[in-house]
Amino acid sequence: MSPSDFFYRNREIAGFSNPSRATYTAVRELLENSLDAAESREVPPNIFLRISELEGQKESETKFYIMRVEDNGTGVPADHIPNAFGQIFYGSKYELKQARGTFGLGGTMAVLYGQITTHEPVKIESSTGGDIHEFIMNIDIQNNRANIFKHNIRQNPTGWKGTSIEIQMDGNYSRIMHRLIEYLKQTAMVVPYADITYIDPKGRLYKYERGTETLPPQPQSVKPHPHGVDVETVKRLISTAKSKNMKTFMMENFQGVGSITAEKFLKMAGVSLKTKPKMLSSEEMVRIVRSTKEYGGFKRPIASCLSPIGVELFKTGISKELGLTDEDYLKVVTRKPSTYLGYPFIVEAAVASGQTIRKSHGPGIHIYRFANRIPLLFDEGSGVIWKAAHRNINWKTYSVEKDTPIVIAVHVCSTKIPYKSVGKEFMADQPEVEKEVTNAIREAARGVRSYISKRTRIQSEKRRLNIFNNYLPVIAQFATRLSEREELPDITPLLAAVSTVIPEEKNTLEEVPRIVEESSE
Amino acid sequence: MSPSDFFYRNREIAGFSNPSRATYTAVRELLENSLDAAESREVPPNIFLRISELEGQKESETKFYIMRVEDNGTGVPADHIPNAFGQIFYGSKYELKQARGTFGLGGTMAVLYGQITTHEPVKIESSTGGDIHEFIMNIDIQNNRANIFKHNIRQNPTGWKGTSIEIQMDGNYSRIMHRLIEYLKQTAMVVPYADITYIDPKGRLYKYERGTETLPPQPQSVKPHPHGVDVETVKRLISTAKSKNMKTFMMENFQGVGSITAEKFLKMAGVSLKTKPKMLSSEEMVRIVRSTKEYGGFKRPIASCLSPIGVELFKTGISKELGLTDEDYLKVVTRKPSTYLGYPFIVEAAVASGQTIRKSHGPGIHIYRFANRIPLLFDEGSGVIWKAAHRNINWKTYSVEKDTPIVIAVHVCSTKIPYKSVGKEFMADQPEVEKEVTNAIREAARGVRSYISKRTRIQSEKRRLNIFNNYLPVIAQFATRLSEREELPDITPLLAAVSTVIPEEKNTLEEVPRIVEESSE
Repeated sequence: MSPSDFFYRNREIAGFSNPSRATYTAVRELLENSLDAAESREVPPNIFLRISELEGQKESETKFYIMRVEDNGTGVPADHIPNAFGQIFYGSKYELKQARGTFGLGGTMAVLYGQITTHEPVKIESSTGGDIHEFIMNIDIQNNRANIFKHNIRQNPTGWKGTSIEIQMDGNYSRIMHRLIEYLKQTAMVVPYADITYIDPKGRLYKYERGTETLPPQPQSVKPHPHGVDVETVKRLISTAKSKNMKTFMMENFQGVGSITAEKFLKMAGVSLKTKPKMLSSEEMVRIVRSTKEYGGFKRPIASCLSPIGVELFKTGISKELGLTDEDYLKVVTRKPSTYLGYPFIVEAAVASGQTIRKSHGPGIHIYRFANRIPLLFDEGSGVIWKAAHRNINWKTYSVEKDTPIVIAVHVCSTKIPYKSVGKEFMADQPEVEKEVTNAIREAARGVRSYISKRTRIQSEKRRLNIFNNYLPVIAQFATRLSEREELPDITPLLAAVSTVIPEEKNTLEEVPRIVEESSE
Repeated sequence: MSPSDFFYRNREIAGFSNPSRATYTAVRELLENSLDAAESREVPPNIFLRISELEGQKESETKFYIMRVEDNGTGVPADHIPNAFGQIFYGSKYELKQARGTFGLGGTMAVLYGQITTHEPVKIESSTGGDIHEFIMNIDIQNNRANIFKHNIRQNPTGWKGTSIEIQMDGNYSRIMHRLIEYLKQTAMVVPYADITYIDPKGRLYKYERGTETLPPQPQSVKPHPHGVDVETVKRLISTAKSKNMKTFMMENFQGVGSITAEKFLKMAGVSLKTKPKMLSSEEMVRIVRSTKEYGGFKRPIASCLSPIGVELFKTGISKELGLTDEDYLKVVTRKPSTYLGYPFIVEAAVASGQTIRKSHGPGIHIYRFANRIPLLFDEGSGVIWKAAHRNINWKTYSVEKDTPIVIAVHVCSTKIPYKSVGKEFMADQPEVEKEVTNAIREAARGVRSYISKRTRIQSEKRRLNIFNNYLPVIAQFATRLSEREELPDITPLLAAVSTVIPEEKNTLEEVPRIVEESSE
């Protein structure tokens, strides 16, 4: 059984369980490939997505659609295109750095789903700057490879770089429409430097404009951290290593291992510094792997392989998509890098509150979840973020009551997101991740209490001033009549006297609801 | 990237996320293979499991263990052994019938995990009745195939049939011990015809003896139901079909399609009865697939490909493992076959209550979940059974209060369990499955109300009788003294008069808590 055959038979595991869910997953996988491709070129992504109905169909819940996704990414080299979209598990190179697509099957699964429901080939156009290569192809599922029907090469006078893909597939748009729009909105939140255009099957245009041209720094590929390796990794490193001895092998193949660490570590593992890597015995290899878990002297994993959104960009994205004003509370934090099972990760959290949230979301806690800049929309209750927000935090200490509107957005980035399924729906509660998520939310929520109490004070002050404004003139009139005078007294100084409290209070207040900058980095 | 490489890098998806979880998953996968092998031979399974520590290790949470699983199953033919345990996705033949192992990767993943943590090869012995074949091997992960170090052939004087496998792996036994024991206990509940012996790393013996020699009828392989097919299936059927025309093709390749149905269906799909299958156009193929979803005249899927536990066996298993007595409530139901997305499934449910449950489990609702006779122990809250039991049922209507002890056991069997992950932890809430699970629990709980009210009545009657028993003699003495007589009156008739209520009530009551037989089949 080939990998294609396996995922053909078990496609629900990859998120293609039924026509509506398949529509969602296909959009998501193709969009993520496109965003990855544009970011790795370090240009602000321009993504065009269109879903249109195939013409001349009967009215029915499930219909045939044509899905088209176009990007301005790196483009796929012509000789890679058939495999990239026609072979499950095709990954050109395994790099240790943060990326959206890690399983190497999303795009191919979308092609496969289209094929088994419509029997139509897929059309792919791509250019890395030179000619444009067009492929009409489908998948030979039993052999896990592409069937190429046509390969056209066209000139590229405009110098277009990017990829476009067009898939026919069955789908159920009406059922999944809301989730899809929500997915795009949340993507715009964490990728505020992307421009996303979407035309839906009814011809409606959804436009998510970028709020900035700035991209976060790109993640750098790193050597493995010794703590995370297993025997297979060591074996593979040895098979390609050119190091003369084990000391230089340790220094050249792992991150953060200098001369002294290498010596100390090998001594603890009971392996001679001078052993040639290729001569390492099976027992020595196992001792090295075991010792990496016990040796306390390694540095923390390097975080340059990660690319957090950053306080500024995350703030831009959330303010833009939630329409926040200066009157609302918003605080974003980026935590320090941490590590679980040898994998580095960073947690970012945003907490927002105020009238805008009340109007758009209503009272209560609303959670947005992101992993490596991918919004997670399904199975919220099973994930670590829900657990952190609902179980680990006592919201009363933040003056958050049942009717307080609160938005929590959490982003986890890592070289290895602890997904519990290939469908990338939610993250497992690895203790270190759970702790960091909880702390990040706590930190971002720290100002909520004073924000709420000051909002309450402003409102009662406003009410007080209203009373003066309403009644002082009446009292003045009444007093004038009572004293049988004709001229009304000037109440302006009096009003000013009681209102002085407000502007002063207002000044201090304005600072609080304002976006508070803070990064723990 | 090979499938082995993929699962090596993403092993948490298959349930091998850390040493303790890996220990659990390895036991589970090997045990399930063994049970499948014995059942397919139609003999009561004898399973021997031993986990022992490798000698001479330092004290530490994570240690090296040797895991040995031995069965009396069919045995694996010698030429299949290297692939069966050394190749991910190796499946000899895809059959449409219920089985525990459906992903074809469990056993190989256990071998792989052992290899990457200890670098030791695995030892497999197997016989289908003839010679015993022993393989010492590991996996060439990058090429997804077995490395065979040794292949010994031995005589088999006793005619042993079965397989034994011995894997060295790192593990964390102390953390997973309770789950493992729970897993074995629950397996004994749904496989009451199996004999399971387990020797743990401390040398403790756990024995789960069979409660019956009877096996449920074995599932039969069936042709696909037209409702569940996709274009790829039709294409594959056509490529191997010998049918002269589309009418006979429909009749020969699908279940429950007779001459009239074939004609009506093809007419609706707009495909001529006389077209040769191999001449079918792409459009016609798609029309046929589409029409299978819309045509209302197909029979329900055949259920002979399923093998429910059955009321009697399920009752045996639950009574045995929970130690229920005649005083406890137990009702088991097997629902009629139903279908989701073209896959047949059957739901079975058991509800138990009473003092035994109170003593062993405490008050409240306790859920046991099974899918194709596999206990599901993790992520209870995410699964459809939890949802059915906690959200869909109003327990007050069954007189079940917060402190009522209730055990609910649900078994879903299907040719395709809607697992949400390769790790087989919980089932998705497919609407049809959710409905059947809910109805099964309701049906099994139907007698709880009268059981509880009658238990309450018995108890209050007992209390009442106790009062008479305690006070009548005292009153008699007092009355004797008051009337200055010397002889006590005979209070026996009086006591008998008030107690007559009890035996009569007791008779009717005894029948209620007794195991109630019912099957909706």
